Amino acid sequence: VILTLTLNAALDVTYAVRALIPRTAHRVDDVAERAGGKGVNVARVLHALDEPVLAAGLAGGTTGERIRSLLTADGVPEAMTPIAGESRRTISVSDGADSTGFWEPGPVVSAAEWARLLAAFRDHVGRAAVVVLAGSLPRGVPAGAYGELLAVARATGVSTILDADGEPLRAGLAAGPDLVKPNLDELDALVGHPDGGVPAAIDAIRRLGARDVVVSLGADGMVASAVGRDGARHVWQARLPDRLAGNPTGAGDACVAALARGMARGVAWPDRLRDAVALSAAAVAAPVAGSVEVAEYHRLRPSVTIEET
Amino acid sequence: VILTLTLNAALDVTYAVRALIPRTAHRVDDVAERAGGKGVNVARVLHALDEPVLAAGLAGGTTGERIRSLLTADGVPEAMTPIAGESRRTISVSDGADSTGFWEPGPVVSAAEWARLLAAFRDHVGRAAVVVLAGSLPRGVPAGAYGELLAVARATGVSTILDADGEPLRAGLAAGPDLVKPNLDELDALVGHPDGGVPAAIDAIRRLGARDVVVSLGADGMVASAVGRDGARHVWQARLPDRLAGNPTGAGDACVAALARGMARGVAWPDRLRDAVALSAAAVAAPVAGSVEVAEYHRLRPSVTIEET
Repeated sequence: VILTLTLNAALDVTYAVRALIPRTAHRVDDVAERAGGKGVNVARVLHALDEPVLAAGLAGGTTGERIRSLLTADGVPEAMTPIAGESRRTISVSDGADSTGFWEPGPVVSAAEWARLLAAFRDHVGRAAVVVLAGSLPRGVPAGAYGELLAVARATGVSTILDADGEPLRAGLAAGPDLVKPNLDELDALVGHPDGGVPAAIDAIRRLGARDVVVSLGADGMVASAVGRDGARHVWQARLPDRLAGNPTGAGDACVAALARGMARGVAWPDRLRDAVALSAAAVAAPVAGSVEVAEYHRLRPSVTIEET
Repeated sequence: VILTLTLNAALDVTYAVRALIPRTAHRVDDVAERAGGKGVNVARVLHALDEPVLAAGLAGGTTGERIRSLLTADGVPEAMTPIAGESRRTISVSDGADSTGFWEPGPVVSAAEWARLLAAFRDHVGRAAVVVLAGSLPRGVPAGAYGELLAVARATGVSTILDADGEPLRAGLAAGPDLVKPNLDELDALVGHPDGGVPAAIDAIRRLGARDVVVSLGADGMVASAVGRDGARHVWQARLPDRLAGNPTGAGDACVAALARGMARGVAWPDRLRDAVALSAAAVAAPVAGSVEVAEYHRLRPSVTIEET
């Protein structure tokens, strides 16, 4: 099973309005709700691919209840650790063309709750082939949270993917995750713009502790620096021949889902990257932000070009 | 006990943001949640005045659960009838000066749920001194809902206040509520602008079925057309000497709360109107929209001027 951990799970609410006019009251035409947070999104994509998954993390209050019941309704097995605080909501107000977002600050997690999460993680990690740690940290969770969790996973011999940003990513890197997947902004924030461009930035991230690195370049595809079956390090660039129109929300989570699945199944590296590019594109093409079109994934996969550099 | 009925209860959420900028994502600085809907607000004001109250109505889903738990946290006894649909949320985004609102469409109520609500209402109404029916009707509830409920209350000999708008108000009036409290907009929508102004409009509403009528004129106070202890009809106008600065949200619900309390305690009419004007003003003066400042109510009450016309 692939274990996803979402410490700052969210209820993602989308409101359809005709037009957003500040300082007026709007009747919302349609309300769509989804369980969210990066790890939860990864779990839902994996479930759509029939990959066994368990969505763990922290969820609290009536919003946390709603997150859990939506996961259950989607058929995604969950093992959220309850907390006293209310999980955060994100409200996206869409007029069909543009979206305006409101992000709640989220709960404050107590030391006792964090200890319970760690204990639950220790219970679950032994049954996992791969652990995905993804997203921001709620207030109260120690900045070194991902380092602690990665150390637990490493002690159990489970493979790990870390998809985070800023200080939580930096602190996690020191614990040696098997794979990190920054986008260009996250890469810049972490290691700046070294001479030598993306390859040099990837080397800098590896020196911070990551074994393998996949950098998403948006419409320009992805670069992977990874140790292949031959035991040697390779750098591959993968891309689709054509740019896709659509909503990039969720493309990063779909990428992580593909990489986790490839890791769990022992897929050879260039093919793992091919899957990641095709599944990300299937998320961009999906009519509902954050979902994937599985048929589109299978259609696009053969057209991904891979180049070793 | 005063029984309030809120068929379209809401979770009122207020977001504090620095500035609302369409087509961007906002970090919400503060989230405030309150149980809402007109009848619920009336119940909370009555509870703040130490008046025994029971908040009934319809509430469903995790949002309905939240509404109930917030009422309980506020100490307001509730007897909401559960429904399968999700109760609505209202989101108010405030930048400190202005507010932008998003109103969810709310649940669809089934015929079986409406029948359960009617049965619960029959159970509760016998213990009530006054029934307050307030607010909009959710989808699925028959347009004549307030008429049915008023007929039940009348058969039990309980006094009734109806605070509604549009067709639900018109349909309710035919069942002869003891008191209705339209504002000027609601009055216009119902009976237009008859020659003779507000007094003529009040007469028109009485012909539709109401016994007593209180019309709120905003900062200009209130007009009541009511049958006094002498058995004769009187028309009083009540107002404060000075205009109050503040947030008018909740002033109407505070007015209804004062009128219900006066009715339950048999307060003589001009004093009932005095209470309504002072309590509405105490809602306008309150720092939190929709709450009342009880001390301010007591301070303002003696300064209300009453004039019989």
